[in-house]
Amino acid sequence: MKVLKDSKALRRALASAGNRGRRVGFVPTMGFLHQGHLSLVRRARRENDIVVASIFVNPLQFGPKEDLDLYPRDFAHDKKLLEHEKTDFLFAPLAEEFYKADFQTSLSVKKLSRPLCGLTRPTHFAGVCTVVLKLLNSVMPDTLYLGQKDYQQFCVIKQLVRDLDFPVKITLMPIVREADGLAMSSRNVRLSLAQRQEAPLLYQSLKDAQRRVKQGPRAWADIKQAIHSRLKGLRHGRIDYVEIVDAQTLESVIEFKAGSRVLAAAAVFFGKTRLIDNVLIKVR
Amino acid sequence: MKVLKDSKALRRALASAGNRGRRVGFVPTMGFLHQGHLSLVRRARRENDIVVASIFVNPLQFGPKEDLDLYPRDFAHDKKLLEHEKTDFLFAPLAEEFYKADFQTSLSVKKLSRPLCGLTRPTHFAGVCTVVLKLLNSVMPDTLYLGQKDYQQFCVIKQLVRDLDFPVKITLMPIVREADGLAMSSRNVRLSLAQRQEAPLLYQSLKDAQRRVKQGPRAWADIKQAIHSRLKGLRHGRIDYVEIVDAQTLESVIEFKAGSRVLAAAAVFFGKTRLIDNVLIKVR
Repeated sequence: MKVLKDSKALRRALASAGNRGRRVGFVPTMGFLHQGHLSLVRRARRENDIVVASIFVNPLQFGPKEDLDLYPRDFAHDKKLLEHEKTDFLFAPLAEEFYKADFQTSLSVKKLSRPLCGLTRPTHFAGVCTVVLKLLNSVMPDTLYLGQKDYQQFCVIKQLVRDLDFPVKITLMPIVREADGLAMSSRNVRLSLAQRQEAPLLYQSLKDAQRRVKQGPRAWADIKQAIHSRLKGLRHGRIDYVEIVDAQTLESVIEFKAGSRVLAAAAVFFGKTRLIDNVLIKVR
Repeated sequence: MKVLKDSKALRRALASAGNRGRRVGFVPTMGFLHQGHLSLVRRARRENDIVVASIFVNPLQFGPKEDLDLYPRDFAHDKKLLEHEKTDFLFAPLAEEFYKADFQTSLSVKKLSRPLCGLTRPTHFAGVCTVVLKLLNSVMPDTLYLGQKDYQQFCVIKQLVRDLDFPVKITLMPIVREADGLAMSSRNVRLSLAQRQEAPLLYQSLKDAQRRVKQGPRAWADIKQAIHSRLKGLRHGRIDYVEIVDAQTLESVIEFKAGSRVLAAAAVFFGKTRLIDNVLIKVR
């Protein structure tokens, strides 16, 4: 695996690896890799001739009061994990070189960035769009692999790619969970023991909503309320949001309509650590 | 010359023309072509294996009170001109397909879009950035050819490309002028005879400023004032702005510094028709 620090070097390396006509799969990450990330890398490995991963804790997607400095990092270990999955190239730019001093471009996907995580993190998805666009231009992949845990991010990037005519396919991969159901996240390591023990309730409450939907028509407000009530019981956690939205537009669902796809999503603060989770539900 | 209406068809056509490893030159236009445009096409033809031109009157770069509907068009004639210059591909998308109904991406280059034309046209350069980014993704050229008449546009696009790591080189071509000095523009056709007769004063006043600078150090305010005074004399025109700015940052120049490069630029309304012109001046 070759490690590259800037876009031009990466492009040169990719060109000399003969990427012309060969399929390139790309997995963007912020590092501190877990099995969720690695499931993306494995899928990319199966489907492509060349696999590129990136590790970059993107300052632009953190708000001024967020946990940029606390975000966990372990580059040496990440490198080993990626090598083990036979990644060809690791792109790991330095923030001060990636965003030059005179950087002044602003980019956002308006509607899809507003609800859910966008309410608490109003500049987050603009930062995500910017880094993803730069990464796409650096890697020029055929397929981009994203994880469902950041489902809104997937929607935003899909729209960005569509709106701006990027010639890239996007593959969404399911959430990988711990044995007790907690969605894997680099941030889990920052939970205290008490917080960690409570955290699986996030998934349980969403899973429960999914079960209720399968039992037949009922008011979305009631289902949402049920998730809310369960999460209210957290002793170490504080609800950021609970939402049930259309899986494509991310707008609140009103009608209980057979054949529609909805997303039940929630975010909970455990201290300063904010965890998110979601389930996709097909209404029958 | 092949004419293509959508990005995917264009990419397919380019791929089957064997663009891999062959140099692609790209000239984006809004049509109603004149010798200024054609000078770009000729340069692209000399320097590349494949030449792509686009004709698209981009609604996004017109303000609500601007002249989108009045913008002159003559597709059949443009086609002949491009064919005559041995253009390989003409990309001419339809606005309603180019910007789909759910389009919601917003893009801008902040600082460089603000002064000069940005004051009168606050959303113009955001529209330019968006269309250029989409065109770059559709054509994927090695070199982009731009004209100096839209010098601020060149600065904005250069910054966009730099900020977002687009692998494209930009070549700026000099302004092509009528015999009496008026910068060629698709909008000139909309001038009345009286307006047309006065319009060359725009260039004369800038050229005069250039002469003054060459005579030795003096206050920029005085030079600017001299341009302003001459344009004040227009009977059919109304000054939009007169500015002297640093050619790189587009910020107002204060110091008269040997070796610096400045841009003297002006915009004048003749009725509803807004003409712009500029000269680049190297201070000795």
